[in-house]
Amino acid sequence: MKRVMLVVAYDGSACHGWQLQPGKRTVESELNYALSELLKEEIQVTGASRTDSGVHALCNVAVFDTASRIPGEKFSYALNQRLPEDIRIQSSREVAPDFHPRHCDSRKTYEYRILNREFPLPTRRLYAYFTYTPLDVEKMKRAAAFLVGEHDFASFCSVSSSAVSTVRRIYELTVEKEGDEIVIRVCGSGFLYNMVRIIAGTLMEAGRGSRSPEEMADILAAKNRCAAGPTAPACGLTLVKYEFL
Amino acid sequence: MKRVMLVVAYDGSACHGWQLQPGKRTVESELNYALSELLKEEIQVTGASRTDSGVHALCNVAVFDTASRIPGEKFSYALNQRLPEDIRIQSSREVAPDFHPRHCDSRKTYEYRILNREFPLPTRRLYAYFTYTPLDVEKMKRAAAFLVGEHDFASFCSVSSSAVSTVRRIYELTVEKEGDEIVIRVCGSGFLYNMVRIIAGTLMEAGRGSRSPEEMADILAAKNRCAAGPTAPACGLTLVKYEFL
Repeated sequence: MKRVMLVVAYDGSACHGWQLQPGKRTVESELNYALSELLKEEIQVTGASRTDSGVHALCNVAVFDTASRIPGEKFSYALNQRLPEDIRIQSSREVAPDFHPRHCDSRKTYEYRILNREFPLPTRRLYAYFTYTPLDVEKMKRAAAFLVGEHDFASFCSVSSSAVSTVRRIYELTVEKEGDEIVIRVCGSGFLYNMVRIIAGTLMEAGRGSRSPEEMADILAAKNRCAAGPTAPACGLTLVKYEFL
Repeated sequence: MKRVMLVVAYDGSACHGWQLQPGKRTVESELNYALSELLKEEIQVTGASRTDSGVHALCNVAVFDTASRIPGEKFSYALNQRLPEDIRIQSSREVAPDFHPRHCDSRKTYEYRILNREFPLPTRRLYAYFTYTPLDVEKMKRAAAFLVGEHDFASFCSVSSSAVSTVRRIYELTVEKEGDEIVIRVCGSGFLYNMVRIIAGTLMEAGRGSRSPEEMADILAAKNRCAAGPTAPACGLTLVKYEFL
């Protein structure tokens, strides 16, 4: 037996998220199916980030165990032949048999994209959240600065979360304008449920002027989901980088 | 009666091109339907560029005549409420009653995008043609330079074309690397059927090294479709700019 790690890119538009759900098409179900067909074994992958429905990834990570003699680095080619075109393996390799992608130190970087112009662009509708209200990027940057570092992010966590501790560390949180898109880029060791989307929704309120950037300190202090802004829609969110430390 | 001009953006992935075709969903059929429903008149738009199935546009142009009293610039808002999400009006205005978008001097700019890396990226599969064979951008630039100016582009025209003259002028043709995408950008007064896609297919052969950049002169001189490279797939092509002179 050996353990193989896959780096997986996907367009989340037509998937009900990463995690297995009875009767629904998910990234995990597609990977299990393609691997089991390829290897004639019952394969069950373990994912690193269980992204929501509609969220995209350039580099999510999954591991599985197999008795196969296929060399670890060959799985990317063999699997891409069998996967639907909205899922593509970016690399594969053998890892230590006890390597677990959720139980090791890592840094994840997410991007949240906002298309901010008068009318929507159809070619961006699945990859950026559209709003015609002009957003002030400078105010969003000032608001974002309050969130960098170690904080209790209870206000930025969906109530359905089962997380034991709501303390997390954000290493970096930037807001940049790229043409008519605003890109929020956030790097951290781990994120609470919907945390990045709630941060994006709250930064948009600061950009719109309906909250002052300085309110972010009060929102953190409240430790209450109701204090923060709305959860921004899934389509704007992409997992862009995954580093194991 | 007045004539109204629409600037139309669309994702061509789920449309059978611009032009009306019996029983098929096209950009033109969607515009006619939305306008006729809105105005309770039988409306028939006239388009500027009749793009192929799978080709995208940020700014195609259409005109229509109507007895409606809705001010020209209000149509964008009213239509976007009724159009499917892969088509969005970017602006609208009243134009002279004899303005015809295909019978006036214009400059069109198309972009052809090639994703050039080891594995496909699902989030780019509808907007860039993927090839893992490394392409040499410098060779593509040298090949492109031969096509700038006025030439007989018969070699770069699909045989099914009914064009009277195959002489066209390319004002600008650039090849640039943007991350792991190569962008071919071509600006001209008009293009023959499949011309941009055949240029892209031929430049890719130069980039791959299967033809020398200098062969472009011979390909032009041959005035024969068989002399050029293959027609590159539609998904990589987007009409990005339309200027009336």
